[in-house]
Amino acid sequence: KLKLMHHKHRVEYQQSMYGRYTQELGVYAKEEAARLRESGQRRSVRDRSRTLDLLEYDKGRCAKCRICTVRCQKFLISRVGEDWIFLILLGLLMALVSWVVDFCIAICLQAQKWMYGGLDSNVFLQYLAWVTYPVVLITFSAGFTQILAPQAVGSGIPEMKTILRGVVLKEYLTFKTFVAKVIGLTCALGSGMPLGKEGPFVHIASLCAALLSKFMSLFGGIYENESRNIEMLAAACAVGVGCCFAAPIGGVLFSIEVTSTFFAVRNYWRGFFAATFSAFIFRVLAVWNRDEETITALFKTRFRLDFPFDLQELPAFAVIGIASGFGGALFVYLNRLIVQFMRKQKVINKFLMKKRLLYPALVTLVLSTLTFPPGFGQFMAGKLTQKEALVTLLDNRTWAKQGIAEEFDYIGNAQAWRHPQVNVFVTLVLFIVMKFWMSALAITIPVPSGAFMPVFVIGAAFGRLVGESMAAWFPDGIHTDGTIYPIVPGGYAVVGAAALSGAVTHTVSTAVIVFELTGQISHILPVMIAVILANAVAQSLQPSLYDSIIRIKKLPYLPELGWGHHEKYNIRVEDIMVRDVRYITLNCCYRDLHNVLLTGQLKTLALVESAESMILLGSIERAQLQSLLSQQLGRARRLQYIRERAVEEKKRLSIVSDPASDDNGSQRTSQEVRFQISTEESSFSPTRPVPHKPLKPALKRPSVVERPTELPTSKNCICVHKHTQKTENPKEARIEKFYISGRNDDEDVEDDMTIREIAEWEERQLDEQVNFNNCKIDPAPFQLVERTSLHKTHTIFSLLGLDHAYVTSIGRLIGVVSLKELRKAIEGSVTVKGVKVRPPLASFRDSGTSSSENETTELHKLWDRHKSMSLPRESTPSESEEKSQ
Amino acid sequence: KLKLMHHKHRVEYQQSMYGRYTQELGVYAKEEAARLRESGQRRSVRDRSRTLDLLEYDKGRCAKCRICTVRCQKFLISRVGEDWIFLILLGLLMALVSWVVDFCIAICLQAQKWMYGGLDSNVFLQYLAWVTYPVVLITFSAGFTQILAPQAVGSGIPEMKTILRGVVLKEYLTFKTFVAKVIGLTCALGSGMPLGKEGPFVHIASLCAALLSKFMSLFGGIYENESRNIEMLAAACAVGVGCCFAAPIGGVLFSIEVTSTFFAVRNYWRGFFAATFSAFIFRVLAVWNRDEETITALFKTRFRLDFPFDLQELPAFAVIGIASGFGGALFVYLNRLIVQFMRKQKVINKFLMKKRLLYPALVTLVLSTLTFPPGFGQFMAGKLTQKEALVTLLDNRTWAKQGIAEEFDYIGNAQAWRHPQVNVFVTLVLFIVMKFWMSALAITIPVPSGAFMPVFVIGAAFGRLVGESMAAWFPDGIHTDGTIYPIVPGGYAVVGAAALSGAVTHTVSTAVIVFELTGQISHILPVMIAVILANAVAQSLQPSLYDSIIRIKKLPYLPELGWGHHEKYNIRVEDIMVRDVRYITLNCCYRDLHNVLLTGQLKTLALVESAESMILLGSIERAQLQSLLSQQLGRARRLQYIRERAVEEKKRLSIVSDPASDDNGSQRTSQEVRFQISTEESSFSPTRPVPHKPLKPALKRPSVVERPTELPTSKNCICVHKHTQKTENPKEARIEKFYISGRNDDEDVEDDMTIREIAEWEERQLDEQVNFNNCKIDPAPFQLVERTSLHKTHTIFSLLGLDHAYVTSIGRLIGVVSLKELRKAIEGSVTVKGVKVRPPLASFRDSGTSSSENETTELHKLWDRHKSMSLPRESTPSESEEKSQ
Repeated sequence: KLKLMHHKHRVEYQQSMYGRYTQELGVYAKEEAARLRESGQRRSVRDRSRTLDLLEYDKGRCAKCRICTVRCQKFLISRVGEDWIFLILLGLLMALVSWVVDFCIAICLQAQKWMYGGLDSNVFLQYLAWVTYPVVLITFSAGFTQILAPQAVGSGIPEMKTILRGVVLKEYLTFKTFVAKVIGLTCALGSGMPLGKEGPFVHIASLCAALLSKFMSLFGGIYENESRNIEMLAAACAVGVGCCFAAPIGGVLFSIEVTSTFFAVRNYWRGFFAATFSAFIFRVLAVWNRDEETITALFKTRFRLDFPFDLQELPAFAVIGIASGFGGALFVYLNRLIVQFMRKQKVINKFLMKKRLLYPALVTLVLSTLTFPPGFGQFMAGKLTQKEALVTLLDNRTWAKQGIAEEFDYIGNAQAWRHPQVNVFVTLVLFIVMKFWMSALAITIPVPSGAFMPVFVIGAAFGRLVGESMAAWFPDGIHTDGTIYPIVPGGYAVVGAAALSGAVTHTVSTAVIVFELTGQISHILPVMIAVILANAVAQSLQPSLYDSIIRIKKLPYLPELGWGHHEKYNIRVEDIMVRDVRYITLNCCYRDLHNVLLTGQLKTLALVESAESMILLGSIERAQLQSLLSQQLGRARRLQYIRERAVEEKKRLSIVSDPASDDNGSQRTSQEVRFQISTEESSFSPTRPVPHKPLKPALKRPSVVERPTELPTSKNCICVHKHTQKTENPKEARIEKFYISGRNDDEDVEDDMTIREIAEWEERQLDEQVNFNNCKIDPAPFQLVERTSLHKTHTIFSLLGLDHAYVTSIGRLIGVVSLKELRKAIEGSVTVKGVKVRPPLASFRDSGTSSSENETTELHKLWDRHKSMSLPRESTPSESEEKSQ
Repeated sequence: KLKLMHHKHRVEYQQSMYGRYTQELGVYAKEEAARLRESGQRRSVRDRSRTLDLLEYDKGRCAKCRICTVRCQKFLISRVGEDWIFLILLGLLMALVSWVVDFCIAICLQAQKWMYGGLDSNVFLQYLAWVTYPVVLITFSAGFTQILAPQAVGSGIPEMKTILRGVVLKEYLTFKTFVAKVIGLTCALGSGMPLGKEGPFVHIASLCAALLSKFMSLFGGIYENESRNIEMLAAACAVGVGCCFAAPIGGVLFSIEVTSTFFAVRNYWRGFFAATFSAFIFRVLAVWNRDEETITALFKTRFRLDFPFDLQELPAFAVIGIASGFGGALFVYLNRLIVQFMRKQKVINKFLMKKRLLYPALVTLVLSTLTFPPGFGQFMAGKLTQKEALVTLLDNRTWAKQGIAEEFDYIGNAQAWRHPQVNVFVTLVLFIVMKFWMSALAITIPVPSGAFMPVFVIGAAFGRLVGESMAAWFPDGIHTDGTIYPIVPGGYAVVGAAALSGAVTHTVSTAVIVFELTGQISHILPVMIAVILANAVAQSLQPSLYDSIIRIKKLPYLPELGWGHHEKYNIRVEDIMVRDVRYITLNCCYRDLHNVLLTGQLKTLALVESAESMILLGSIERAQLQSLLSQQLGRARRLQYIRERAVEEKKRLSIVSDPASDDNGSQRTSQEVRFQISTEESSFSPTRPVPHKPLKPALKRPSVVERPTELPTSKNCICVHKHTQKTENPKEARIEKFYISGRNDDEDVEDDMTIREIAEWEERQLDEQVNFNNCKIDPAPFQLVERTSLHKTHTIFSLLGLDHAYVTSIGRLIGVVSLKELRKAIEGSVTVKGVKVRPPLASFRDSGTSSSENETTELHKLWDRHKSMSLPRESTPSESEEKSQ
């Protein structure tokens, strides 16, 4: 039935086409191409409205009733298009997902504890149970993810950052990835490894948004809007963080800091709305499940309100901040080191590539062995889960109140921190040191997992360590006059958690997340001070964890300009631009086109008036030119040529018999011929879609099949034709049919040219002047002046999500700058006046990336490969076309 | 001495000029013009470095010592250039200002109370004291501001929004304004009127940043960077809010929401850093002054932590949100109504214009009479100051616990809410109603004042009212099972405050401000829900208060696209663009230039290749063309013409005597002549600076004198010349000298042309072809395609801060879109297919602006006037030039 519909649809198009053939065909063909590209998407809408029309014409018994129903339906559907419906659905869905995942994780962890507790009698069995459980879960998670959707591995924030930058990453927003990510994450976290759920939840929320958008587009056309989808993805990132921590404000801010370069304040409310709703539902579910009495914070603290901290404690908070800065940088460095080590060791690498699940299993085995509570785990509170550890660390009681090694009343989980022989400071130090490298190692396991929560816990432990030391040092508090206010180590833990996680992610909004997580804001100033100091230190030493992963994964990205590197204002576009621009002229012939396409590599080509004037008229996408060329050399034109030749032959024969009718005939033929071209053009587009549609939506519809377009060189063409003529190979024939679909009326002409004739004909065709009428030209590609500063160029590129920009001087094209050059310039590989442009503390950073040279070249290769996915600018006609419905 | 310096400087330039005259003069003149424009700014730097050089060459006794000192100084100065130094200074300064202002206000309010309390015996005297005090203060404030700097009147946020949009508002960032704003604000708030300090503090912080930037530029050149200054202004706005409420996070978010359209996440840390530091110092000052024991929130609350609210209370919070939304919209509407009423009533208007201080005095008299505590004030807690009222409203005790009209233990200021005859609900309702219109009226008084705080208090009172009602309705709380948790009306007050202030300002971040103000985040979900609902309602009814003031004040602005008005995607640039573009061709003559300049009104003119091809080559600023024209017709050229004539005459005489030296001579002359032009060009620029430098910094140096350039029509030129020739008027002579300064070598030639000769000569000059070599052309003006959607156009305009963009079709200029057209299109005055494009609820908004038609035309007039101040794009040469030092 669907096929019938499709057919009907095409028929409708052809009718409208016949009806319009008097229009100028160039314009018409363009419109038609755009229309056809959307046809698949619009079909459902059209079908529905057609049904409606039919119903209204149908004067049956309960027609009125039916019309009414349909109208109601229509109204509801129109409502569905509104943003807030989408955001509420998204929030609801994510809250449910988050809650279910949390629930499953809790069950998994409980099961492990139960097993471990039940085998109390035999230590060896206990160990086996303690170790096997996480190994199985992690291995399953890794295997499942690997098989279903390898894109689900890891955090997801780096990918979302890249996608929001305007790059389309394939398969990152599919249903498969969603399933793999959710199940993989649940298993990974259920194993009790030091992994987090924040990053994956950003990805899951984006997946949700993308899938929901796809689902909603069944009801209304509004979901086709590309820029809207990007906005929704940004909101989804906020929802991800928001429902993970029940932190709507922190979620919005964190997602903005982590994923965006420029943020439209216009979209601010979307994030707040969706994240608030999501966090609300997430907490309501907890109340409904009788876990909580009412909606409160996730890790509620009960510090005193009247005197949260003394002014004289601020230096200690500042120390936490600075130390966390160094610690954060070290964490990022360590993580990258581990990855690079694993990659470099060829033997290990080779072995691991064969047995992909061995690495996760081995790492898990090592990590869980170390945390085995009767073993080494007893010195590092190994039996606590991440959540339990955090709750005890944020406790408002002081552990070392009565001095070291004395008895103090640990209740509940806090007992894990106490060891008969070793005092609590040693336990804390061991916990911090061990968890530090363990977390850095754990996040390299190829399962869906984040690093935020482990880092957060380590930071809390560090803060608690400093706080306990302070409490031991000043047993009666620092405040001198009047009341005794003892020091609250829990407050230090809060500060430490915010500072370390802020340092690792290079964000300030961890402060807000901390407030929302603990439900107390009384430590706002210490937290802010520590977070800012930690950021200052960490940012000058290392990239953020997410940027580091972007580099490791070699995703296409544009690095940020650092803090106040004013020397970069010195570089101008003329210093970095590529002067050897590939261009085509307005009056070039197809041979030039062919040559340019063979040599260049940029995705779009500049169109200039002439080689002498070099006045830039616009840019044309490579694919457009390829289709122009293949059209010129294609079978359609050849058949037409044969037909023309036949007509001419006939004419020559009948020239004596009826000279009057000749004029008419040729006129009609030429009309037909021009029309023929346009038909082919329009039927051509859907089968070989232009793969580089500008500003491609991140939420791409799967209905558009992406197919790598090859350059149809003349030899290829000949080859194909030869085959179809000589052989009866059904596959080749199908390909041929693919090209000539929709032109059944051509069957009357016989393709009787020999290969030689074809080659000759093609040579002749190549010498013809290019007719750009049917070609989609971007008439206003982005232009820069040669003296534009690097700073401004970077701003414009990030603001508009450009991929490249032409450099012009009074209308004349003199160069081109692409992301590649810009990235090189920012990374300092371009020298100006002999001096390398580098951030002041970059030398330290270098030692971390010893293979930076290698990496850069690799990166460039990958960049070029990835570039085929990245799509810079919006094609305005198609966009406006889409919205005109 | 400064003059000497200046002279020296010029000499240096001329030397370097002589050294470079072999260069191509067109390029050279451009560079020179850019250099001279900055010369004033760079001088200090140059002088200093020269001193340094001198010192290093000086081999005196303690030369080494001196060199060391100088180097230290140099190092220190280079450090001064770093952002964080500036931000710390800014934060420190603003904290001090905020604290001093608060201190003075507190003293003023105390004085009033003391006077009022002292005259306890006589009610009439008491009334006089109660009324006179604010009247005097407000009148003084209004008068002082009026005399010193009328720009200081009002909030300042609308102006900052406009400035951050890229528009330069004159005199808004001067020291005078700073003094007027600080003193005016202190007096205004000291009077006890319902006015706030938030908006003015945003302005004051920006003033501080601008002045500090100016001051710091004495030490280093980095402060000349324009985009940096804009970034610093954005940070300053955050500091303003941050140090006003001791709310760093809320400050940053609020300032972003209120002032920006697109926010660079890159600059995020600046705001956080400065605002945190500022808030910290502000609170430390309070500790230091023994007001507080340690750093805590400004309006600390002590709600219970374990069960802040029940789930079943959420509908009540939602009701507060929705009602606040309507209330906020009503407030904005009421405020605008009052302003429009005052403007329309011609009689009142005329009278008030004469006696400017009468309006403030009258309003104050009325308002203070109504709050007179023994009078009507007793029913509305009239004797409480704003701060006291807020503290009592946020109290965590329930006022109506024992039911209505019963005795309950109000302590301290809370007693003011109790009235023997009337119950507390009536008091609250009266308070809300009275304060509502009183605040809307009070903020129309022309003194520096904001509306945030009054609205905040009203919101808190409304929330308290709902809370008390709930407490009266459910005396034992709503929670059914187990413990009794009574309802906390203080929590409702917090929610109400956030919701109403959020509705009036259209921001979500008031939620964060509320948390930071109260020091408790336990009510996060109710607050977020209420704020979002309030925003949703208010935004669909009215513009925000700041946008409303922008409209009232007719500042140049670009309205936001509303929530999901997808029909706007329908409009394309071709529907709104102006097709009749003023342009000049590359080969036009000066007469064409003259005509175009006389007719057009846009700030820049398009330069096309020819009238036939219409290929856009770039755009030229009007002022550039004017200077080209005046140069062509100026006295310099005329004198040169006379000299040439004389030389020719001489040549003709000496042609027989030495024909060989003739060639040399003419060659030298022509060289000299060309050089002469460039000299004039360069010495010309500083005296008549091009007033429309692209992307003018908001922090403009005062050294650049702005002088309205008039179009030098040929008649004007003749006039001036006539005068200098015929009269000995010293003023005219000075003007003339002004024009020819730096060309003393011309004095040898006698200007002996008659008026008739001059007119003839000018006619001849006008027919010459324009030489664009010395003209600064923007080679890449922003271009759009005719099918660009309105949505995208709006995005691009706000992202890049554009003023206009050319519409091109494959290189050909076909139209121009300026902010004006865009604004019109967004506001819906452009019809597409006969349907007005309007937001769905705009009809309600219309009734508010009944005179919208009038206003629009007025607005356009003003717009054109203002446009002379607005400067859209960065001129890259000058920018990069600036940074090259």
